[in-house]
Amino acid sequence: MLKTPYLLFLGDAPDPLAAKVAQGIKDWRPEHCLGQLRLEGCKADLGLPDFSVAEARARGAQTLVVGAANRGGVISQKWLATLVEAAEAGMDIASGLHNRLTSLPDLVAAAKRSGTELFDVRVPQHDYPIGDGKRRAGKRCLAVGTDCSVGKMYTALAMEKAMREAGMKATFRATGQTGILITGSGVPLDAVVADFMAGSIEWLSPENEPDHWDLIEGQGSLFHPSFSGVTLALIHGGQPDALVLCHEPTRTHMRGLPHYGLPSLEELRELTLATARIVNPDVKVTGISVNTAALGEDEAVQCLREVEARMRLPAVDPFRQGAARLVEALNV
Amino acid sequence: MLKTPYLLFLGDAPDPLAAKVAQGIKDWRPEHCLGQLRLEGCKADLGLPDFSVAEARARGAQTLVVGAANRGGVISQKWLATLVEAAEAGMDIASGLHNRLTSLPDLVAAAKRSGTELFDVRVPQHDYPIGDGKRRAGKRCLAVGTDCSVGKMYTALAMEKAMREAGMKATFRATGQTGILITGSGVPLDAVVADFMAGSIEWLSPENEPDHWDLIEGQGSLFHPSFSGVTLALIHGGQPDALVLCHEPTRTHMRGLPHYGLPSLEELRELTLATARIVNPDVKVTGISVNTAALGEDEAVQCLREVEARMRLPAVDPFRQGAARLVEALNV
Repeated sequence: MLKTPYLLFLGDAPDPLAAKVAQGIKDWRPEHCLGQLRLEGCKADLGLPDFSVAEARARGAQTLVVGAANRGGVISQKWLATLVEAAEAGMDIASGLHNRLTSLPDLVAAAKRSGTELFDVRVPQHDYPIGDGKRRAGKRCLAVGTDCSVGKMYTALAMEKAMREAGMKATFRATGQTGILITGSGVPLDAVVADFMAGSIEWLSPENEPDHWDLIEGQGSLFHPSFSGVTLALIHGGQPDALVLCHEPTRTHMRGLPHYGLPSLEELRELTLATARIVNPDVKVTGISVNTAALGEDEAVQCLREVEARMRLPAVDPFRQGAARLVEALNV
Repeated sequence: MLKTPYLLFLGDAPDPLAAKVAQGIKDWRPEHCLGQLRLEGCKADLGLPDFSVAEARARGAQTLVVGAANRGGVISQKWLATLVEAAEAGMDIASGLHNRLTSLPDLVAAAKRSGTELFDVRVPQHDYPIGDGKRRAGKRCLAVGTDCSVGKMYTALAMEKAMREAGMKATFRATGQTGILITGSGVPLDAVVADFMAGSIEWLSPENEPDHWDLIEGQGSLFHPSFSGVTLALIHGGQPDALVLCHEPTRTHMRGLPHYGLPSLEELRELTLATARIVNPDVKVTGISVNTAALGEDEAVQCLREVEARMRLPAVDPFRQGAARLVEALNV
């Protein structure tokens, strides 16, 4: 669990997109964000107060979160002096980039001197159990997709927000590095050893109050041959009561695999239910989340209407419309 | 790839079952087995010549394979002197036990002095790629089960044997530690990091001659919530043309999970085909392998007849009957 509040480090991000992790934290957990630290040439701006390490520390910042990525997704040499300064000032450092904080000798030495911690959120931080498939109290909703990167994380975060606003008990459960940085904890499922995948999700989503919902972040797709095993471990470890189908209507092939077409929403529904019923016979598909970012407003409305009529389920773009209808459809 | 021939180390195995890995190597790869080495008190006997380390080495043994397991599945302190002696004599050492050869300082030092290698076959030895789902030339058969430990490895090995005896091109592809020790190479799939599972199987079963068959060792079960993700990665990475359904008719619940019943063969067929068609639309279920070890001869024959009539596919116990009918059913 990362300590809050955060100083969000944007580095020399060449454009706003390069700081999308920081933007996600600010969008979904604004209460954790004390300020931002930008180096010379940074073209991203979250609209938070700009602080130096010393200023942020004086205001109580506990963790510097690396919220930007450069080409290659690694920690840049240009950033190192600032990270070392933050560690020496007593802040923990968290990163989801490919090269590990713990592989940088100067940073490791600084953290050791000051007694602070380095969190590489891509690296499993726990010895997970082997899954046992036992039913656990509490409710669980899992977002599954016709493909990777169709808005599963966004959908789960938007549903958590809508549920909390409605006074419901809800917790987003992160299963990827961006989600982990946003919420401060989670399981980096794609880096977990095969035998422990399902168990790691059981651990992530433990027994809870009967009216509490876990919104579990989906990964991959049952139809994506590179990562389908990860998705099935998530379905069987997560034991969802409710499934939300996620889709991007303009995509012509599976992400990274031009030789694979996308399944229909009907195919996704049938295969997901067939696998999910093994661990929870009462599981239901409760709604559809369509990422209409590539469509104009009229097209988007028409697309959602068509999907809703065809699938006989609420079809929503949570970015345009919020997730309230997906939450209502959980029928609680 | 382990160097042959082997000296099979049985240690002080308290009974024949404790030496089942060595027995498997001797049954399926007798041409690789030079002899056995047994310590005082060993109650297992493969019927191979008994050699000391020096005798085996003089006859050309290249690798000492730890073919026994004691309680806990770890390398016993009693065994260490012999393993060190073998390493010093110039033999590689291979083991599939839980504690690693490379965690034993005396053994590591001996191997370093003599320039020999230590192979922990539970540990992935390769950086596997991410799967790309591309079709590869050659044919592939995968054994899938209603549960774990129902005879999938045995079935694939028996089919490989029958195919080679019939003059066909066939290669067993190991995905677990026993299979790896038997064939000398493979992927320890349950220890592979989630993102690389499917890719590791693509690597294991590369493009081949059009009339060559890979017999891929199955793992887990789509219906076993602890390990189903591993099984799906195997289906999508393996891209099978043919599926053999494996079953143990007397089992009353999923292995290790008393709260989960077994699926029917029909349910196994439907879910496996639904997932396998994603990567190979032409995949077929070609036969059924029933492990009738717990049944008497008459009961076994009756069970196989019933399954065959019900499923309209050849149903065979390869241990009792050989795998010839499963091979014929591949229709090649």
